[in-house]
Amino acid sequence: MDIGRRDLLLAAASLAVASVAGGARAAGDRKIGYAIVGLGYYGLNVILPQFVNCQHSRVTALVSGDPAKARATAARYGVPERSIYSYETFDQIRDNPDVDVVYVILPNSMHAEYTIRAAKAGKHVMCEKPMATSVAECEAMIAACKAAGRKLMIGYRCHFEATNLEAMRLARSGAAGRVRYVRSEHGFVQRDPSKWRLKKAMAGGGSLMDMGVYSLQAARYMTGEEPVSVMARESTDRGDPRFAEVEDMIEWLLKFPSGAIASCLSTYSANQNHVLLMGDKGRIELEPATRYDGNRLWTGKDGRAEEISPPPGPAKTQFAGQLDHLADCIQADRSPIVSGEEGLRDMRIIEAIYGSAREGRTVKL
Amino acid sequence: MDIGRRDLLLAAASLAVASVAGGARAAGDRKIGYAIVGLGYYGLNVILPQFVNCQHSRVTALVSGDPAKARATAARYGVPERSIYSYETFDQIRDNPDVDVVYVILPNSMHAEYTIRAAKAGKHVMCEKPMATSVAECEAMIAACKAAGRKLMIGYRCHFEATNLEAMRLARSGAAGRVRYVRSEHGFVQRDPSKWRLKKAMAGGGSLMDMGVYSLQAARYMTGEEPVSVMARESTDRGDPRFAEVEDMIEWLLKFPSGAIASCLSTYSANQNHVLLMGDKGRIELEPATRYDGNRLWTGKDGRAEEISPPPGPAKTQFAGQLDHLADCIQADRSPIVSGEEGLRDMRIIEAIYGSAREGRTVKL
Repeated sequence: MDIGRRDLLLAAASLAVASVAGGARAAGDRKIGYAIVGLGYYGLNVILPQFVNCQHSRVTALVSGDPAKARATAARYGVPERSIYSYETFDQIRDNPDVDVVYVILPNSMHAEYTIRAAKAGKHVMCEKPMATSVAECEAMIAACKAAGRKLMIGYRCHFEATNLEAMRLARSGAAGRVRYVRSEHGFVQRDPSKWRLKKAMAGGGSLMDMGVYSLQAARYMTGEEPVSVMARESTDRGDPRFAEVEDMIEWLLKFPSGAIASCLSTYSANQNHVLLMGDKGRIELEPATRYDGNRLWTGKDGRAEEISPPPGPAKTQFAGQLDHLADCIQADRSPIVSGEEGLRDMRIIEAIYGSAREGRTVKL
Repeated sequence: MDIGRRDLLLAAASLAVASVAGGARAAGDRKIGYAIVGLGYYGLNVILPQFVNCQHSRVTALVSGDPAKARATAARYGVPERSIYSYETFDQIRDNPDVDVVYVILPNSMHAEYTIRAAKAGKHVMCEKPMATSVAECEAMIAACKAAGRKLMIGYRCHFEATNLEAMRLARSGAAGRVRYVRSEHGFVQRDPSKWRLKKAMAGGGSLMDMGVYSLQAARYMTGEEPVSVMARESTDRGDPRFAEVEDMIEWLLKFPSGAIASCLSTYSANQNHVLLMGDKGRIELEPATRYDGNRLWTGKDGRAEEISPPPGPAKTQFAGQLDHLADCIQADRSPIVSGEEGLRDMRIIEAIYGSAREGRTVKL
């Protein structure tokens, strides 16, 4: 039958499209489909509203333990009901051709599990920072994505943020001369003792696993170097119910091969968001440095001599830039600039920071 | 003879005045006389022009190895020729009743010698920072002044500077809440390899012995606490002719009994002059923090929310305040707020910083 034959051809064409969509390459300008795993504050209020700013990315599925919240969110973002998953049904995402990427926005302790399950389901993975709670987990995540032939990117949004990009460009251009010192401090007053970020089993650690990742990342991307050793000091009031399980404040020094030093802080008991690079010819300063918006940049020989308005980034927002970067990498079969290996590098340093703080000695990297 | 008898009485009165002037108490509003030892940049261009701003202090003698410079300076400041000394004739200052205080503004390695010689000459001592080049020297200086019954003060001018005084007051008043963190960074690009500050034998060390003292002092006076341990990291390019003998950059972490942490830097390869205190309710920030003038102060929950104009200090300038403070202490027989013991405390920490940097481990204080 003609109709039967035409239907068959259409079905075959659909299958081909589905195969491409589920695979590493998507044809032409088809948008890459993201499944958002976790509808907490960041997923719901920060990431989901950003797809309208994306050129190559769209949200196509949701994974949540709260069916009502998932349905309401799906309706809002045009996600079909069939593309709503619970944590129990998550692995069925394998059969959803609209999902290219699983974006893991869960408590840290769940990053490894859902990254590995996503890879096994044949999906690329965007995973929030910190990549996981241990080096071993990071290595397992990288191995799983490699085995599945899928890409793994960490949600290091600052690499797509115009102010930070301009600061990196200035640093590399020698605007401050020879880089001697980077200070990077991130913290806020964490008030609610019930937050999962204060539970060791879910967060893997305290402020270092949260704000500390920004400090560490900035030290690395501002110097453009990998540290060779670390020396750290923790200060936590264990009598404070917020800090019964995890550290409040941790400060660490990194030494880089060039001789540059970074002094980094993370804290849950003070508000700070600051990055400063000092060289022998001048400085580059960001404050706030790594916020969702409103970051500011200064240069000068000394003090905040000149405020720089960075040129607009390639994307509308850092979030859209991050989402579209993985989409572009999938379409062009390139490695993300902030890959799983990048997350692993940070986790190796994080473990060394904890080790140094515990033992009161320098730890070589 | 009447004339003979009158002369004798006048001579006796003169002797009494001389005795008082040379001793610990000066009568009424007589100004305390300073001998300036060392006519380098700081003595000549910073301290000497400040006596016009003093209420209780005047310059009455000069000690220099350069007779022409000494004579020209003496003429400018109204110091009589008989009150010019060389380093060879220095000890004769004992016989000069116009000199109450010897102000030692010499290379660090000479602080101990001239402080001790001044005390033995019966003079009070103002000594520039760093107090000396070792704990042993500081202890000998304190002992010498104690044995002579003379006061010893260190030239910690920031304790008399209106912006720093207001920052200290705000910190103590709880304006930032519970103090959690102080960052204190001081440095400048030291360009001239021939400077005595780059000679180990004269300076005792590098940037730590110079700018680092400001960072350390600020960490202590902003927290109002004494550190219990230190962890330090040095970075010096020993191939750079400037740093053949002394360190360029050194970064250290101090832990205080309250749990507050200080992160301090000194460097000779970047310009920085900054102090930040963070508490759980807000922050106090100084930039520039410890300059001769133009220091600025901010407070806020986050960032530089509000600039504070500190109330005018008790003295016209920090230098006049410092000079008059010792004069007041002499006249009222009180201990200076920045005594030799205060300098010794810093030197103990400085030795611990060097030890920690050398050994790569935490040093208890």
